[in-house]
Amino acid sequence: MGKGITSRSEDYSQWYNDLVIKADLAENSAVRGCMVIKPYGYGIWERMQAILDKRFKETGHTNAYFPLFIPKSFFSKEAAHVEGFATECAVVTHYRLKNDGSGNIVVDEDAKLEEELIVRPTSETIIWNTYKGWVESYRDLPILVNQWANVVRWEMRTRLFLRTAEFLWQEGHTAHATREEAVEESERMLDVYAEFAEKILAVPVIRGRKTENERFAGALDTYCIEALMQDGKALQAGTSHFLGQNFAKAFDVKFTSKEGKQEHVWATSWGVSTRLMGALIMAHSDDQGLVLPPKLAPIQVVIVPIYKTDEEKAKIDSFVDELIREFKQKDISYKYDDRDTQRPGFKFAEWELKGVPLRIAVGARDLQNGTVELARRDTQTKETVAQEGLAVIIENTLDIIQENIYQKALQYRDSHITEVDSYEAFKDVLENKGGFISCHWDGTVETEKRVKEETKATIRCIPLDAQQEDGVCIFTGKPSTQRVLFAKAY
Amino acid sequence: MGKGITSRSEDYSQWYNDLVIKADLAENSAVRGCMVIKPYGYGIWERMQAILDKRFKETGHTNAYFPLFIPKSFFSKEAAHVEGFATECAVVTHYRLKNDGSGNIVVDEDAKLEEELIVRPTSETIIWNTYKGWVESYRDLPILVNQWANVVRWEMRTRLFLRTAEFLWQEGHTAHATREEAVEESERMLDVYAEFAEKILAVPVIRGRKTENERFAGALDTYCIEALMQDGKALQAGTSHFLGQNFAKAFDVKFTSKEGKQEHVWATSWGVSTRLMGALIMAHSDDQGLVLPPKLAPIQVVIVPIYKTDEEKAKIDSFVDELIREFKQKDISYKYDDRDTQRPGFKFAEWELKGVPLRIAVGARDLQNGTVELARRDTQTKETVAQEGLAVIIENTLDIIQENIYQKALQYRDSHITEVDSYEAFKDVLENKGGFISCHWDGTVETEKRVKEETKATIRCIPLDAQQEDGVCIFTGKPSTQRVLFAKAY
Repeated sequence: MGKGITSRSEDYSQWYNDLVIKADLAENSAVRGCMVIKPYGYGIWERMQAILDKRFKETGHTNAYFPLFIPKSFFSKEAAHVEGFATECAVVTHYRLKNDGSGNIVVDEDAKLEEELIVRPTSETIIWNTYKGWVESYRDLPILVNQWANVVRWEMRTRLFLRTAEFLWQEGHTAHATREEAVEESERMLDVYAEFAEKILAVPVIRGRKTENERFAGALDTYCIEALMQDGKALQAGTSHFLGQNFAKAFDVKFTSKEGKQEHVWATSWGVSTRLMGALIMAHSDDQGLVLPPKLAPIQVVIVPIYKTDEEKAKIDSFVDELIREFKQKDISYKYDDRDTQRPGFKFAEWELKGVPLRIAVGARDLQNGTVELARRDTQTKETVAQEGLAVIIENTLDIIQENIYQKALQYRDSHITEVDSYEAFKDVLENKGGFISCHWDGTVETEKRVKEETKATIRCIPLDAQQEDGVCIFTGKPSTQRVLFAKAY
Repeated sequence: MGKGITSRSEDYSQWYNDLVIKADLAENSAVRGCMVIKPYGYGIWERMQAILDKRFKETGHTNAYFPLFIPKSFFSKEAAHVEGFATECAVVTHYRLKNDGSGNIVVDEDAKLEEELIVRPTSETIIWNTYKGWVESYRDLPILVNQWANVVRWEMRTRLFLRTAEFLWQEGHTAHATREEAVEESERMLDVYAEFAEKILAVPVIRGRKTENERFAGALDTYCIEALMQDGKALQAGTSHFLGQNFAKAFDVKFTSKEGKQEHVWATSWGVSTRLMGALIMAHSDDQGLVLPPKLAPIQVVIVPIYKTDEEKAKIDSFVDELIREFKQKDISYKYDDRDTQRPGFKFAEWELKGVPLRIAVGARDLQNGTVELARRDTQTKETVAQEGLAVIIENTLDIIQENIYQKALQYRDSHITEVDSYEAFKDVLENKGGFISCHWDGTVETEKRVKEETKATIRCIPLDAQQEDGVCIFTGKPSTQRVLFAKAY
C-alpha cells in the first residue's frame, strides 16, 4: 500500500481522500467547501483544458468571458432555473468593509447593494442577457462561445474535486436559428466529451439522455456521459443541454429570419468541470496510488539514477542527457530525479504514488550491460531493456499503457452492466454487485423518485443506443418500451 | 475615421471607448463595473496568457488554484493590506435564496454566513494561510506558484479593461528562505514583464520602484513597469512586490533553516491583468481603429477576394488554398474573408478597424499578372507584390511591422520624457505637453501628496537606472539625490 493510503477494500471513500491529499493533487482550504488545487493536480487539469480547448476551437467555438456576478433579478427570470439553483448560491450584499472604531474590521452597512448579486453557479442568465445585444438577424447566428471560469454552488456536503462549493469548469453557450441546429450542436458537444473521456482520460462512458427529473434546470433535454468508478458507483462526467427557446424567451432574444419573421433564438449549453479529476482518479488508481493515463500525466517518465560514487553518477548523467534529448524530440515529458537527499526506494514509492506511467532506473551495472530497468505503473511490472532504441520503446509503451488502462476500465464497466427484470433482482444487484442496472421503467417521475428513496439508485440515463424492446417496469409493472440505466452515483 | 469612432484629437477618452466597443473587444455588462470580454478581445488576451504562461514556466513556476473567497478574519490579518483593500471589496453574507411566499425570490435570512467572505481582490492572505501547511524546512523552499484568476475590486469609476470591478489576471506568489532570494525573484519577474511588454505588446516601458505612498498594501518594495499612452498619460502595466516577511508573520509561516533555526519565510507577489489590453489599445491604435502588433493579433493576415464571376472566384480560391497551406507551415494566422454578403470595401474597413496587421486583396487582374495587393495596417500603405514567394514576404513583413510599431511607440515615449528643475516648468509641461516629467523630489510622502492635489500628477516610479545626481526638490527646494518620474496616469 502507498504510504499512508487506506486500501480500497477497507474504505473506498477514505482511499480516495487519502490519495488526493498524498499525491499532492488538492486539499481543503480554510473556506468551507472550497479546495486548493495544488500544482501537481493543476498540471493535470491544465492538460485537460488544453486538449478540450483545442477540440472546442476545431468545432468552431471561440472563448469569451462574462461577469462573475449575476443580478438577482436576472437569475430569477427563468422559473425552472432559479428553482434549481436558488438554494445553493453565494450572495453578495455589500461592497465595503470598515473599521468599527475599536479596531475591528466589519461590514459597512452603508455600502449595501441596491440589488443583491449572485456568484454565478452557471451563466445562462447573464449570457443570454448579453446575447440580446448581439443578435438582430439570422446573419448574427450561430453564436458559438465557450467560457473557462470558476463557479460557486453552495453544496452542504463536499468532497475534493467531486463536489466543491467552488469549482473550475468550462461552459459553452450557443445560439442558433433553428431547433435542429441547436439539437445537433448539443449532440456534437456530447460526442466531443465522450471522445475526450475515452481517448484521453481512458474512461469508457455511456452516452445518454437524462430523465425529466434529472434534467438541467431550464433545459428541454440534457445529454450526458456516464462513467463507472471502481466501487461500482456511476459518475456523470459531462452534460450537454438543449435549452430550446427558454432562455431566449426569458431574456427576449429574437432574430429576423431569412423570411423576415421575428423568432426566438434556440440555445444549448454544455460543460465539464474539475469533477473530471475525480473521475480520472477513481477510475484507474489503486492502493499504491494514482494511475495516470500517459496523455494526461504531467510527467510521463521518471528517471532514477542508482549510484555509489560521483564517477558512476557522472556516467549516468551523460547517458540521461542523451536520452532527454530524444524525449524532447518526441515530446515525451520526463523528470530526472537525481535529488541527493532521498534514496531510490523513496523515489520509487513517491512516483508510484503520483502515478507516473513509466519509471526508468539506471545503475552502474546497467551502464556496463547497456540496459536499464523499465517499470510500468499500470501493470506494476518491470523488465530489463536495452539502452539502444530506448526512446522508441518508451514512446510505444506509453501508447500501450494508455490503451491498457482504457481496456481495463472498459472490462470492469462492461462486466458491471446487469440486466434485471424484477425489483428483487434490482435490489440484489445494487447491494451485492453495484454498477449499472439495465431495466424497464414506466417513464414516470414518481416511480423514479420512489426507487431513489428506497434504494438511493437514480436513473443515470436513457442510453442513446437503447433498443426498442417491450417490457414492464420493474417497480410498477406498467408497460415500457426501452431499458434505462440505474445506478448509485457520485 | 473608422465607422463611428470619435477621433483622438476630438476626445481621446471617447475614442478609446468607441474603439473597444466597435472593434468587438469588450462591452459593459448589466452588472455595474463588470465587463464582458468578447471573443475577439478574449482572443488577444488568450495570446497574452499563453506567452506569459510559457515564460513563467521557463522561469521555474507552476500554476495552482486557490479559493475565490477569503474569510474576513484572514483578510484583516495584515494591517496595511486590509487598509488598502477594505473599501473596495465585494462581501458574501448569505448562501441561499428563497421564495418569499408571494412569488418573489429573496435572500434567505436563515442562511447567513457565520463569518462573511470577501471575494478576493488579491490572494496573498488565503495563499499564505495555505503555505503555512506546505512549509516545514528549507527543503520545501522555494515555492514558485502562479495563479490565473478573476479578482474583484469594487471601483467606483470604471472603464473597460483599464479599471473594472472584476478583472482577469495572474498573480504569482513565491516563498523563499532568504531576503536576497526573494528580492532577486521580484526583480526577475519585473524583467519578464518588461520584456513581454516590449517584445510582444511592442510597448516600451520604464522599470522602476514605487514610492512608499504608491506601494502595494503590505509590500516592502513595489517594482513596476510604466508605459506611456498617446495622450501623454502614464499607465502602470505590471507590478512585482517584495513582501518581506509581512505575510509570513501574519500567517505564522516559519521554516527550519539548514542551521536548524526557525525563521519566517520571505515572500514576493507579482501580477499583470486585463489592463494590459487597455495599454495595448491606447499605445498603438489610431482614428481608423485598432493597430495590433503581429505577435498578439488573433488574425495576422486577412485575404479578401475581389471578383465578378463564379469562375473568377474559383480561380482565386485555388490560389488562396495554396497560400493558406504555406501560412499553416509558417504558423501565420489568417482569415479568408470570402463572405458573399459584404462588399470588399466593407471588409477592408472592418479589418482595418480590428487591427489586422496585413491585408491581401486579390482580383482577376492580379491572377493574370501573378500579383496581389498587400496593405499594411500600421503604415496604411499598399503595394503590389508578386505571388511568387508571397508567404516569405508576409512572414518578413510581420516582423517589420512588429518592430515598426514598437519603434513608433518608443519614439513617442522618448520625446515625452522632459527634465524640469522648477515647479513652474513642471506645471507647464504637464499642461501643454504631457508625458513623463523627470525632476527632483525631496523624498517625502507629504510633498508627493501635495503635488498630486495641485496637479493630479503622481510619482510613477523611481527609475531603476536613475543616476545619482544632486539637486533640489521642485516643490520644497529641499535637497535630493536623484530624479523621479512624475506623470498623470490611468
